[in-house]
Amino acid sequence: MPLSPPLENDAQNLHQQTETTRREISSGLEEVLYQEFPVLDHGFVRVIDYMGNDNAIVQAARVSYGKGTKRKTEDRGLIHYLLRHSHTTPFEMCEIKFHIKMPLFVARQWLRHRTANVNEYSARYSIMDKEFYIPSPEHLAVQSSINRQGRGETLSPEYSRYVMDLLRDDAEQVYGHYEELLNEDGAGNIINPEKECLTRELARTNLSLNFYTQMYWKIDLHNLMHFLTLRADPHAQYEIRAYADVMIKLLEQWVPITYEAFLQYRKEGARLSKNAMDTVKKLLKGQGATQEESGMSKREWQEFTEMLDLPC
Amino acid sequence: MPLSPPLENDAQNLHQQTETTRREISSGLEEVLYQEFPVLDHGFVRVIDYMGNDNAIVQAARVSYGKGTKRKTEDRGLIHYLLRHSHTTPFEMCEIKFHIKMPLFVARQWLRHRTANVNEYSARYSIMDKEFYIPSPEHLAVQSSINRQGRGETLSPEYSRYVMDLLRDDAEQVYGHYEELLNEDGAGNIINPEKECLTRELARTNLSLNFYTQMYWKIDLHNLMHFLTLRADPHAQYEIRAYADVMIKLLEQWVPITYEAFLQYRKEGARLSKNAMDTVKKLLKGQGATQEESGMSKREWQEFTEMLDLPC
Amino acid sequence: MPLSPPLENDAQNLHQQTETTRREISSGLEEVLYQEFPVLDHGFVRVIDYMGNDNAIVQAARVSYGKGTKRKTEDRGLIHYLLRHSHTTPFEMCEIKFHIKMPLFVARQWLRHRTANVNEYSARYSIMDKEFYIPSPEHLAVQSSINRQGRGETLSPEYSRYVMDLLRDDAEQVYGHYEELLNEDGAGNIINPEKECLTRELARTNLSLNFYTQMYWKIDLHNLMHFLTLRADPHAQYEIRAYADVMIKLLEQWVPITYEAFLQYRKEGARLSKNAMDTVKKLLKGQGATQEESGMSKREWQEFTEMLDLPC
Amino acid sequence: MPLSPPLENDAQNLHQQTETTRREISSGLEEVLYQEFPVLDHGFVRVIDYMGNDNAIVQAARVSYGKGTKRKTEDRGLIHYLLRHSHTTPFEMCEIKFHIKMPLFVARQWLRHRTANVNEYSARYSIMDKEFYIPSPEHLAVQSSINRQGRGETLSPEYSRYVMDLLRDDAEQVYGHYEELLNEDGAGNIINPEKECLTRELARTNLSLNFYTQMYWKIDLHNLMHFLTLRADPHAQYEIRAYADVMIKLLEQWVPITYEAFLQYRKEGARLSKNAMDTVKKLLKGQGATQEESGMSKREWQEFTEMLDLPC
Repeated sequence: MPLSPPLENDAQNLHQQTETTRREISSGLEEVLYQEFPVLDHGFVRVIDYMGNDNAIVQAARVSYGKGTKRKTEDRGLIHYLLRHSHTTPFEMCEIKFHIKMPLFVARQWLRHRTANVNEYSARYSIMDKEFYIPSPEHLAVQSSINRQGRGETLSPEYSRYVMDLLRDDAEQVYGHYEELLNEDGAGNIINPEKECLTRELARTNLSLNFYTQMYWKIDLHNLMHFLTLRADPHAQYEIRAYADVMIKLLEQWVPITYEAFLQYRKEGARLSKNAMDTVKKLLKGQGATQEESGMSKREWQEFTEMLDLPC
Repeated sequence: MPLSPPLENDAQNLHQQTETTRREISSGLEEVLYQEFPVLDHGFVRVIDYMGNDNAIVQAARVSYGKGTKRKTEDRGLIHYLLRHSHTTPFEMCEIKFHIKMPLFVARQWLRHRTANVNEYSARYSIMDKEFYIPSPEHLAVQSSINRQGRGETLSPEYSRYVMDLLRDDAEQVYGHYEELLNEDGAGNIINPEKECLTRELARTNLSLNFYTQMYWKIDLHNLMHFLTLRADPHAQYEIRAYADVMIKLLEQWVPITYEAFLQYRKEGARLSKNAMDTVKKLLKGQGATQEESGMSKREWQEFTEMLDLPC
Repeated sequence: MPLSPPLENDAQNLHQQTETTRREISSGLEEVLYQEFPVLDHGFVRVIDYMGNDNAIVQAARVSYGKGTKRKTEDRGLIHYLLRHSHTTPFEMCEIKFHIKMPLFVARQWLRHRTANVNEYSARYSIMDKEFYIPSPEHLAVQSSINRQGRGETLSPEYSRYVMDLLRDDAEQVYGHYEELLNEDGAGNIINPEKECLTRELARTNLSLNFYTQMYWKIDLHNLMHFLTLRADPHAQYEIRAYADVMIKLLEQWVPITYEAFLQYRKEGARLSKNAMDTVKKLLKGQGATQEESGMSKREWQEFTEMLDLPC
Repeated sequence: MPLSPPLENDAQNLHQQTETTRREISSGLEEVLYQEFPVLDHGFVRVIDYMGNDNAIVQAARVSYGKGTKRKTEDRGLIHYLLRHSHTTPFEMCEIKFHIKMPLFVARQWLRHRTANVNEYSARYSIMDKEFYIPSPEHLAVQSSINRQGRGETLSPEYSRYVMDLLRDDAEQVYGHYEELLNEDGAGNIINPEKECLTRELARTNLSLNFYTQMYWKIDLHNLMHFLTLRADPHAQYEIRAYADVMIKLLEQWVPITYEAFLQYRKEGARLSKNAMDTVKKLLKGQGATQEESGMSKREWQEFTEMLDLPC
């Protein structure tokens, strides 16, 4: 069970309590507030709080014009226009706060995004739970031979079992030693009064990168979309992509119009270089085009033809 | 009337509507949401939205310990502890969005604070209102002779009137020419069809820095306290301090415990140098201390003695 | 003469002095260091300092591989690859510091870019120079009828003269009153000892937005390219674009390979939405496409057809 | 040997090459450029590049006054004044780039500082070296009983040996399994062609937090001083403090005047609350003071009396 009992208790209480507010709400997000969305074998994503909705974006954009709110159909057009033209500041007017549990190696990638606020579980103060990530067989893959950072085919079933056992045994062992070094249980009681307790901040260094940590993570909508564009991308590691995929569904719950524009102009859109644009124009005029003439490198040409379903 | 009619209308409606939410609320801030707090002769501050309250800070700090919420008395101690020891990340978990109307020269100082989100009224798109700041006589002061960025005594009553008239006349004139150059009224209708309309982005360059602009400004609680510490300081220009003073009252409405700690450790606290600390220790031991022995410069010594009510 | 005499003197001295360094240099930028590039009627851009060159980007990217430097031809490919795939962190490893003089209305747009370091001339401390921007006739244009933030045709020659005179007369007048209010000359001497001197921080509020200010502005290469993409865009106001155009030439001097990639993937590249990509694919397969079928709005369809030289 | 052979080779070459530049230099930093300063058992800090020196701070501060450079003695006073009054923007005008090798658990703390640029070694692309941190006996300490994040007495000599062996054995084992899973050597050659090679991005999850990573880390002087204040503090974990201590020496090499002011106003200075200041004033007037009257909590009172060498 991912949430520890006192947190689970809080979550239940919080979800049941309602308050009256003068603020605007997102009815979609209210439905799932505090609720735990499982990711990987022990992780989760929960929305803890939020500020603003699609309307807040429109409102902020219209500060520019000194005019009151307009009709709903125009709002959709305005939001699409803003995202298409990279007028990103109105999207910064919405904010969301997540509670996320993820393996340490995922947290390390996650925290490279600097325009967010973070409070992470501290293993200097507190004792880490015995929870670690073991990939399921369908995600255990060989190193890609063409992409130095990617995965190729999945491992054979027997070898998968071997790998999973090896990872599990090592994690069990390092955690066992972690407990031995701490010489105290999760409640802070000393186990063996005859023995010294190694300081927590050093004992934790024996844990491996597949152990789970958790954090509160708060970000504005513009930077969230940037994060999701990068981390839901097929080039991102599967384990962080699994989180991004869940968060994209929460984005839809929160700001349905912006979500639509996000798919259109970010997630499913594309960026073309000058040479690529020139080549497309030639092709549309019925003129031929070759890699040599295009000015693109072989690699770029390959990316280009794949992007447009062209024969390479 | 600071709010333009359609915005005023919105504000009324918004303040009357209530919604049910599962989020935590700040009951103090709910009372004043959307309400306009006047500042200077035509400016205002309004809270448009917020996220979090004192409890959200405690909650974020306790992610570190994996424990549920504790008693209220401990919350106060924890918040004070966090601010005293500059553990600032939990304060970043709260966010607030203001609608502010201020003179351009105040906006220029304001926007030097970079860790905030902004949507400002655009004079490239829209026509500026005829509203400008004229200091009242009690704020019209001579240049300080000791502080190059400060004010000395107030002007004599007659000269005050002269200065106010001069500022008003110039503002009236540049606005009149602005309208003439635009050749259109606020509703976008051309005034004289025989005449050319200068583009708005150039016509605005004739306006002076005392004209009012407005913006949505969103910031987290940690950065807001940093802003308020600097801008409510006696060294800040009176006109921006007038805004900071109103916002400090709104801080009290929003997060009363944090407000208390803010006064204690930031606004009314002090920073002492190594030399100043060494000198205090000597004095407390009954040993004498002089500027020469202290290692402080004359200027620093003067600041030091004033800070501690010592004879200089 | 844009640089004030003591600064001009410094600039001369600095340009003549050379030092020996173990740091890498950019030979292109060394040639123009401290040199003043005029912009508009009184403005300029100068490079004051820099850190890194094309090689620093390659070096930072290769930290990932734990390998030493490779051949020059591969460097070019790597830099192009990084920018094409938005691997932007290696570009953050280069930094540049400019000294810029620009009208206040340009400075206001400029400082909306928050990921930069700034020291601006302070009119609270110091007296503003009598220098203001008057557009030349070829930049004095009517308000665009199709684009609310743009310019249409230039004004007729007679009306241009009228507008220029009006702007100049108002600027002269507000500056005259500014001096009268200050009652001191640029050297800080009181003009009329019988009169009170209004504090500088208030006197400046009478100046108009076409007066010049200056600042030191420091930014990393990634954020500089983002700034230049937005501000050298045809939608940007001419006056800020004039600065961006000069800075793009300095970019070429500094990091010639990155400059090439910048033109290719940023400045001259394009972003296509999902619907736009689907439509291009259909067209390339020889299938027809209409606005209605495309899922694009009329406005987006128009932008799309213009972008690809298609008949609308 | 911390630097891998090709990097070591580069470092040697770079240190020998000199160039002529028109930029200002820091003669102290030039001496040690590229040089490796060892930290912990396998870590290091190297300065790779820098921009600016003490003079650049003065220059930036003086942009405010429109005046050229002054005498050296005044520079010192100005830099001290700026830091004492938290006028931090001129310090942002200097930039430094480090190459740092540190254990993963140190890197995790390090990267919580967001206002810096980073390029870290990627274990998705590349194979991690077999280098891990084992604390030396004098740093192996028991958990503090009074401070939940601190260290108490060092372990007994026999238990130290046991702990070091346990940590080393586990690190050896997880690295051995890491290599087995990769099924390739450091040069990327497959070891056993009969076996599948697990993708690097998953194999790395078996490594523990004491393994070393490395990064390029670039930061401005203001934010560097903030980092050093927090990380050279006695409350910081010893292992990151060891890096901060080395970097403070590099700060002295780089900007000797700022270094002096940093010690005075940051590292060795103190922050006093309103209650603490009121109590100091009372004590200085010869009036008694008690914890109860002071308004401070017991914990704060204790911190207060320790700070000022008072009897508690």
